[in-house]
Amino acid sequence: MTSVNLRSDNVAGVAPEVMDAIIAANHGSSPSYGSDPLTDGLNAKFGALFGRACFVQPVFTGTATNALSLSLLAPGWGAILCSETAHIHDSECGAVELQTGGAKLVPLRQSDGLIKAEVLEEALTQTRWGNTSVAPPKVLSVAQATELGTVYQPGQLAGLADLAHRFGLKFHMDGARFANAVAHLGCSPAEITCDVGIDVLSFGGTKNGCLCAEAVVCFDEALSEEVRYRARKMGQVASKMRFVSAQLHALLEDNRWLKFAGHANAMATRLSTGLSQLQNVELLHPVDANEVFVSIPEAMRSALTSEGFGFYDRGGGHVRMVTAFNTRAEDVDAFIASAARAQERGDQ
Amino acid sequence: MTSVNLRSDNVAGVAPEVMDAIIAANHGSSPSYGSDPLTDGLNAKFGALFGRACFVQPVFTGTATNALSLSLLAPGWGAILCSETAHIHDSECGAVELQTGGAKLVPLRQSDGLIKAEVLEEALTQTRWGNTSVAPPKVLSVAQATELGTVYQPGQLAGLADLAHRFGLKFHMDGARFANAVAHLGCSPAEITCDVGIDVLSFGGTKNGCLCAEAVVCFDEALSEEVRYRARKMGQVASKMRFVSAQLHALLEDNRWLKFAGHANAMATRLSTGLSQLQNVELLHPVDANEVFVSIPEAMRSALTSEGFGFYDRGGGHVRMVTAFNTRAEDVDAFIASAARAQERGDQ
Amino acid sequence: MTSVNLRSDNVAGVAPEVMDAIIAANHGSSPSYGSDPLTDGLNAKFGALFGRACFVQPVFTGTATNALSLSLLAPGWGAILCSETAHIHDSECGAVELQTGGAKLVPLRQSDGLIKAEVLEEALTQTRWGNTSVAPPKVLSVAQATELGTVYQPGQLAGLADLAHRFGLKFHMDGARFANAVAHLGCSPAEITCDVGIDVLSFGGTKNGCLCAEAVVCFDEALSEEVRYRARKMGQVASKMRFVSAQLHALLEDNRWLKFAGHANAMATRLSTGLSQLQNVELLHPVDANEVFVSIPEAMRSALTSEGFGFYDRGGGHVRMVTAFNTRAEDVDAFIASAARAQERGDQ
Amino acid sequence: MTSVNLRSDNVAGVAPEVMDAIIAANHGSSPSYGSDPLTDGLNAKFGALFGRACFVQPVFTGTATNALSLSLLAPGWGAILCSETAHIHDSECGAVELQTGGAKLVPLRQSDGLIKAEVLEEALTQTRWGNTSVAPPKVLSVAQATELGTVYQPGQLAGLADLAHRFGLKFHMDGARFANAVAHLGCSPAEITCDVGIDVLSFGGTKNGCLCAEAVVCFDEALSEEVRYRARKMGQVASKMRFVSAQLHALLEDNRWLKFAGHANAMATRLSTGLSQLQNVELLHPVDANEVFVSIPEAMRSALTSEGFGFYDRGGGHVRMVTAFNTRAEDVDAFIASAARAQERGDQ
Repeated sequence: MTSVNLRSDNVAGVAPEVMDAIIAANHGSSPSYGSDPLTDGLNAKFGALFGRACFVQPVFTGTATNALSLSLLAPGWGAILCSETAHIHDSECGAVELQTGGAKLVPLRQSDGLIKAEVLEEALTQTRWGNTSVAPPKVLSVAQATELGTVYQPGQLAGLADLAHRFGLKFHMDGARFANAVAHLGCSPAEITCDVGIDVLSFGGTKNGCLCAEAVVCFDEALSEEVRYRARKMGQVASKMRFVSAQLHALLEDNRWLKFAGHANAMATRLSTGLSQLQNVELLHPVDANEVFVSIPEAMRSALTSEGFGFYDRGGGHVRMVTAFNTRAEDVDAFIASAARAQERGDQ
Repeated sequence: MTSVNLRSDNVAGVAPEVMDAIIAANHGSSPSYGSDPLTDGLNAKFGALFGRACFVQPVFTGTATNALSLSLLAPGWGAILCSETAHIHDSECGAVELQTGGAKLVPLRQSDGLIKAEVLEEALTQTRWGNTSVAPPKVLSVAQATELGTVYQPGQLAGLADLAHRFGLKFHMDGARFANAVAHLGCSPAEITCDVGIDVLSFGGTKNGCLCAEAVVCFDEALSEEVRYRARKMGQVASKMRFVSAQLHALLEDNRWLKFAGHANAMATRLSTGLSQLQNVELLHPVDANEVFVSIPEAMRSALTSEGFGFYDRGGGHVRMVTAFNTRAEDVDAFIASAARAQERGDQ
Repeated sequence: MTSVNLRSDNVAGVAPEVMDAIIAANHGSSPSYGSDPLTDGLNAKFGALFGRACFVQPVFTGTATNALSLSLLAPGWGAILCSETAHIHDSECGAVELQTGGAKLVPLRQSDGLIKAEVLEEALTQTRWGNTSVAPPKVLSVAQATELGTVYQPGQLAGLADLAHRFGLKFHMDGARFANAVAHLGCSPAEITCDVGIDVLSFGGTKNGCLCAEAVVCFDEALSEEVRYRARKMGQVASKMRFVSAQLHALLEDNRWLKFAGHANAMATRLSTGLSQLQNVELLHPVDANEVFVSIPEAMRSALTSEGFGFYDRGGGHVRMVTAFNTRAEDVDAFIASAARAQERGDQ
Repeated sequence: MTSVNLRSDNVAGVAPEVMDAIIAANHGSSPSYGSDPLTDGLNAKFGALFGRACFVQPVFTGTATNALSLSLLAPGWGAILCSETAHIHDSECGAVELQTGGAKLVPLRQSDGLIKAEVLEEALTQTRWGNTSVAPPKVLSVAQATELGTVYQPGQLAGLADLAHRFGLKFHMDGARFANAVAHLGCSPAEITCDVGIDVLSFGGTKNGCLCAEAVVCFDEALSEEVRYRARKMGQVASKMRFVSAQLHALLEDNRWLKFAGHANAMATRLSTGLSQLQNVELLHPVDANEVFVSIPEAMRSALTSEGFGFYDRGGGHVRMVTAFNTRAEDVDAFIASAARAQERGDQ
């Protein structure tokens, strides 16, 4: 039986180049807790990537990256504005609330996962500023790519940033799939981050071929002290950190991060193109990055499952497929073919 | 020049057997966030080790293990009694205070790193119980092996447990070097944990040859819900958890965890035996596990450093050496020889 | 010029009987921090009120009462279900998130401020139980009276309680205006609290004639240790507590709490009856307790304001009036008359 | 039987002038949550007292004042240096740890309750700065008067401030008995606060004749936003705040705060002078303020107790007496006489 698992991009394993880097890092002894040369080299590596000095703290998971990033920007008595579909709000078990010391997450209405400037403006102007019964907005957090597989244009981010800054908010980007966004836009990484006023970026590695490597990228170097201590306080400072940093180096070298993400995006497009030609399959959101959301009939879902194709069932007839750095075109095609067969059989 | 780094056991790399297990885990796709078969198998593996059902939560670091373990046992309004040398108190940047929601750490007087029953009893009887100005003791936490390289005898732990339970405290063990303690005692793992009333054990893997793998071992299975959610809230739930769990499996298989620790212990004994024969070198604590604490003359310290031997300078003429699973006997001997040469030269 | 302030019930002063009790408590010395006889007598007083043993912790404010109550019931890794209009969610600046150690508030759809059983059931059945990315519901919190001035019937509460208990949730009641609810229902206090499974009640005093006195009423006496320590940790344990407890005694004596609330309710009914006879004034919610929500024309709002009548402008043409223990019937009538004049003038 | 209670200064009631002010505040309606004129006038009142603009947040208790003050100065990842006898460390149930989001309290060696400059310097120079395993010192907190009844000279505070600032620390003063310190020194309030670099002062009112009124005094007005929101988050924003603010006004008017404290100090001196002439009674600390610490024989303690004199038994033969704004000279003399009788009888 086929076994093609598109349930998430984190069901994939580790990219060979990343694994090789882990193995290569395993020689001799090395200073612990981040004093090793590989970790030391991360600031320069990311600095070159963004064309700008920055401070990089490697951590283990996406939830940690976001909670740590937001704890740098949001005071415990403030609020964080985010999309109602934000991962930080509905899928991280309140990590942000704990690690910030009680900050309040305020979900905003979204369209295809994107926060529109007018929605943000409405939220900011309607805030009862100065009334201590309501935690004042202090941070705007957007996901790029979003949780619904769409990607903000640089101009949209600039518009949000203008609003955020006008009201005194800091700006955070959840980049669990940052590479997919950059690959989609074909822009420079800086164009959608530091250039538009992002203060801290959660840079994702694990979904893009790493084993357990994410990075908190601080474009304000004044945060370098706090980020290090807070990482420790969260149990996110690896004693053998060279093995985490090695993954990030491997990912950035040879432009691999974009190649991996570009491949995943292409596979998602291939999948959505194929599926959307089927009757009864409705594409729910534009496919900018590596996620495909469709509405499909119950019988088609069953058929796919029984033929060994994995996806994420979101209820209400909606399913999500996520492609990864190593998703194979033939598997995508087999997925489409299985769905097509179900349709031909008249599965309802 | 020689390069023998005994600064800590976490300057060592990853044991080949563990690395092989990581590589072996990297095939195909696998459910994420701990739903994979390797993670699923941990409860049975540790259950067999301790001869008792338990729930195991893999996490990335020792600080995370301790903070998570203690958040299960200590209410935010309680106090945690520990040794004044406890890692949780002086070396984890207040992780416990944050992750427990404000619990108070109360350091107790220690002897060679060990809390004596009479000291614990004095603390418990002198507590102003019921006076809300003082956070009431709710947990006793001991390190086994201790931060000073000593090991509690089973009877000592039983004595502490009796006292703790009589006053209604839970009992936590920081086992960052648990393997070294078991190897030293030659006892079963259960004898110094569940059999004496330990509620939750921080089981260390990273210092003992893993890349980034520790385990919160709950002997009270009723904690299995809470530990999973709290781990997530701390950003400690690996999306590709199979690679963390694979490390723990590799460590436990073939009794490797004890072989590795036994070797490290033997190297520490070899080192302390050699050094203690030198005049002007004073052994500061018994060497039960894999740590050696000595007082040595300044000139000897300089000579060792200049000859490429690494150790941890604790100030006041005191240094610490820690041996690991892969410390070589010839390197230990070279270390001793270097010290001996310094002494012969009359280095002060 | 008239000055009738119906902006909230906390703009009122202190009832004379309560002030007298404060003055009477000011003789001689008294043990501090709650060891005084007045505080000691609270358990019996509330026990008699509810016909059931309970433990009572006096605190200073409504926000403190709610945050403290919920910290007893909700683990930091859990979620608290509440109405989307809940004061704990939108008007307490994230106090609950901080004092619980990061619990997540999940707002539910409401009708006139009330959570319907089917809405709760839908939320509970659709929860992805066991998925650690989502904080699991552990507490249901309802306000009685609600923030929109409506009151749950005992049967409605019993229905919610059944659901909550079936899914393992604790049940909290925000009774900032509990007296108004009891006065409206004409039931016993127990019928809508301990009898239907409320675990902890936030009992409000300040809005009902006290200076600064609220009570956390624990129907589960096992919480008596935790509530005392947590109150201290929040800075809510008065050193001269006799003066807080004296207020609660004065409120409960002679059935004053119900007389005060009954009067406030009657004034609200008088106001809503009068206003709803005016054209262009639309009553937005049933007036069960002491709050009146209406939609009125802009010009009428301006006229009322310019004539010295205070109310709370909620935006969008909606205003709120709240009556108190000392609201005078002639002032209510004057309010109505002012609105009527504005209508006659054709104010738009 | 006599009943003279010197157990603490918070066993006393409310000064008549303060009670009168509370009663006077009880007329008409008033904006809630601190928008009333009395609260509004506090900044000017304290500004005049300190000869400098400041922002004042009234709260209910000393523990709240300290926890709130420190949450403004200490990041959750930092450490707060204080005396080993500090109330914030050993008598506030971990309120600081919770309200700061996990800051670490580091107790320093003290002499008669005072932190010496050399002790602070040693702590600061020995800190392993930059090592993330240790929370870095970010705040120095001193009590003035100290918990042992002594008072820092302005020059001593200036010395501590110099050190603190040189290492980048903020400076907090726990002034639960600030009035007693100023009365003792005869200096201006500014001389020992803003003039020596205190950033935030916990100004005590309750022990000095108020019912429940303390103030967080921020000499850095930039803290005015944060202090208001954090107070709310702690449930410390009184809805009927005029009644809290009225107490502070009454205390400051007519220089009452210093008269009250001066009287208490004089009574403490009278008591310590009398007692220290008795054989077998040993004065343990200088009596600068309103607290007297002595070592007295067991039999004398029993005799005093049986004759109705209250004091605080600290164990080990040590007792504490605290005088208040309303302690009567004849009661002090009766206390001394009772002790003298016990000595004459040869009580051991």
